[in-house]
This record gives sequence, C-alpha cells and structure tokens, in this order.
Amino acid sequence: MSRLENIITSMVELFLEYADDEGKKKQLNKEELKRFLEKEIQSEEFKQQISAEAVEEAMEMIDKNHDGEINFREFCRCVSVLAKCYFNQKTGKGGRRGKGRDEPEDN
Amino acid sequence: MSRLENIITSMVELFLEYADDEGKKKQLNKEELKRFLEKEIQSEEFKQQISAEAVEEAMEMIDKNHDGEINFREFCRCVSVLAKCYFNQKTGKGGRRGKGRDEPEDN
Repeated sequence: MSRLENIITSMVELFLEYADDEGKKKQLNKEELKRFLEKEIQSEEFKQQISAEAVEEAMEMIDKNHDGEINFREFCRCVSVLAKCYFNQKTGKGGRRGKGRDEPEDN
Repeated sequence: MSRLENIITSMVELFLEYADDEGKKKQLNKEELKRFLEKEIQSEEFKQQISAEAVEEAMEMIDKNHDGEINFREFCRCVSVLAKCYFNQKTGKGGRRGKGRDEPEDN
C-alpha cells in the first residue's frame, strides 16, 4: 500500500473506531473527539508542535453545521488543521503558534 | 507514535517530498500533484474506490486561490476529498461514485 493509501485508510479506520455508535449515522460527538485527541496526541514532540490553541481551533472550526456531531468531512478538517500546525512548525512558518493564519482563509 | 501522529507526519513528509522546489515557497505545482496522485494511488482496490471523477474533483477544488500552485492547506483538502470518497465506498454511502455530495458543502 502506498503512503497516501495508508494515510487515507488510517483516517477512515481511526474515525470509524472512535465513532463507534453502531446503527446511528457514523458521527463523532464532541466527547468522542476530545477523547480521540487526548489519546492520539501523545508524544512530547507533538504536544509541543500542536499547541492547545491549535486543538481548540480545530474543535471550533470542526462542527461547522453545528449539529453537535462531527462527520467524516469535519474530522478530515480537524486532522488538516493539526497537520497545518505541525507543517508550520516543521517548516519554520510557525511564528504565531496555533494562530498561524499566514495564508488567507480560502473561501 | 500514535496513528494520528503517523497520519500527520506522513502528510507533511509526503507533501514536502513532492514539493521538492528548494528555495521557492513549499508548494506543489499541478504537474507535481498529478505525478503524486498517479504514483500514490496504486492498488486496484484503491483505483476502484477512488474514481477518476474523485481525482478530477480533488484537482478542481484544490487550487482555490488559483495561483497554479498547491500549498499544504490545499494538499490536505485533496487528501480529504479522496478520503471522503474512500469513506463513502467503505460505509456504503457511495451511491454516486465521486460525485457523492450527500452532505451539503460547508460554506
């Protein structure tokens, strides 16, 4: 399996694992998402790279349709926000930790 | 490393590898993105799950700021579009392959 395929299958598996609400539409509630982030952000390196603000920012921007539930599209957005924060740190663009809106928000 | 950390680091490494334009701002041009998708979507299973339309859809929606270059945020959006397509297939929500806009586009 290629690395992209690995990323994609891991994202789907991870989401389905935490959204373990059989029967009900596959969604994560905020508690499940919080548990997911707490459990999955473990290493010191990551905790420093991904600031509490970035996690907060990810939580805020996720539940875009405000139904209190996080669907897979919103989950991908959450992973992307965290990845962007990590990318900024790694490539030295992370001047303002977590709030790094150096690129204008795409509309 | 947790699976989420693995996903995030792989996304960053993969992007940086394909956006190998030293010096210039870390971006992918369309050629590099096309090569990335061709190279990284290999397995038959994936080729069936991720239709040509989904790849096209990913390409169309990526270069949102129309500068011909794909930054890391847009790259994450591309991965998310493909992951969404794979998720729909996996969870049986993939009635309309690639065009599955079952959830209203978040504005």
